[in-house]
Amino acid sequence: MMRIDILTAVPDLLKSPLQTSIIKRAQDKGKLSLFIHNLRDYAYNKHKQIDDRPFGGGPGMVLKPEPFFECIESLQSERSYDHVVFTTPKGKIFNQKIANDLSLSKNIIVIAGHYKEIDDRVRQKFATYEISIGNFVLTGGELPALIIVDALVRLLPGVLNDSEAALDDSFQDGEIVEAPYFTRPAEYRGMKVPEVLLSGNEKEINKWKEEQSKILTEKWRKINSAQD
Amino acid sequence: MMRIDILTAVPDLLKSPLQTSIIKRAQDKGKLSLFIHNLRDYAYNKHKQIDDRPFGGGPGMVLKPEPFFECIESLQSERSYDHVVFTTPKGKIFNQKIANDLSLSKNIIVIAGHYKEIDDRVRQKFATYEISIGNFVLTGGELPALIIVDALVRLLPGVLNDSEAALDDSFQDGEIVEAPYFTRPAEYRGMKVPEVLLSGNEKEINKWKEEQSKILTEKWRKINSAQD
Repeated sequence: MMRIDILTAVPDLLKSPLQTSIIKRAQDKGKLSLFIHNLRDYAYNKHKQIDDRPFGGGPGMVLKPEPFFECIESLQSERSYDHVVFTTPKGKIFNQKIANDLSLSKNIIVIAGHYKEIDDRVRQKFATYEISIGNFVLTGGELPALIIVDALVRLLPGVLNDSEAALDDSFQDGEIVEAPYFTRPAEYRGMKVPEVLLSGNEKEINKWKEEQSKILTEKWRKINSAQD
Repeated sequence: MMRIDILTAVPDLLKSPLQTSIIKRAQDKGKLSLFIHNLRDYAYNKHKQIDDRPFGGGPGMVLKPEPFFECIESLQSERSYDHVVFTTPKGKIFNQKIANDLSLSKNIIVIAGHYKEIDDRVRQKFATYEISIGNFVLTGGELPALIIVDALVRLLPGVLNDSEAALDDSFQDGEIVEAPYFTRPAEYRGMKVPEVLLSGNEKEINKWKEEQSKILTEKWRKINSAQD
């Protein structure tokens, strides 16, 4: 069983995704134990203050170091962790290889950062993995943390049903885009499903899927190699 | 006021992020009206079936076209939409430029896709923007949809407080990584804040921040230009 500890300033945000998604199912199946830690529970200050103004000036607030140190040190004193993952725009952009790698861990800590930012001493002291979810600005690291957890939990053996077939999804094996999918009705509002898919001819169907996949992968590469 | 309509098969997943984040605040401030549409409410079948097996075989289920057509056509009959955004691994990888672009819309529809996949006729008919959140496999498009909405809602005038200063965040102006942030205490567990930040010398502080930003941006580019 994998153990994930998430540290956050906004634990309420995480509630419904953790109760409805693959993350919930992984816990129900006994493949994952997940703990959410509210940084306020580790604040020194009686007002539970967890942020303060940045040294050197500038707008915005910075998350103070103490709650992170207290929480992470407490966790690390109880068991060893393979990784302490930071969500930060400074990090390596998340991809399937990182998800695969993280999914082999026994215990990990995930820090849901906040823009602006955690006191950098926390990163210096603890970070073993700094992950950016992409080149865009978000309000907090909670959604990126959930995405990282979703991506790795579905790789744990026994979490997905056989029919969910993680392994042939787009990107599981490199940057390959799958052929389009269609389901019933075969004709809807004048729009028809490609005939080959209704033919029952497995060889032709596979050939069509491969061709479509090649075309879409090429198109995807072209779209995403543009500068903006 | 911007209007966003999200179509999803898992409306419960969206609850807490929409109640605790910038998305909630934008609504409270009257800058955003947000509507969640449960695909099951638009199913034809009395069992509220919204998915079916793929034509041509293979594992997994495909979301049926009818609920999407019914919901989107109903919305489009009431007002005009600037964009119908699909979250899909086939799409352009999300970046700040797309967020900026979408934030100029008056009305948008966001489709939280599901892996596997929506019947492709829905995409053919309605999609004006196909967005991938990155090169990794997720269980559903709900978290990507939330990320897109978070990124664009914080750009709406009047949503962020002045002090939150969207504009100098990492990536708002291209791929620039900010200098590290520190807050009190100036020394914690033997770890000291860089002295220049305590100096009060604004010129030196700005020089340090620029240098650090250059170093970290260079490092970030290097990390993210590697093949994996």
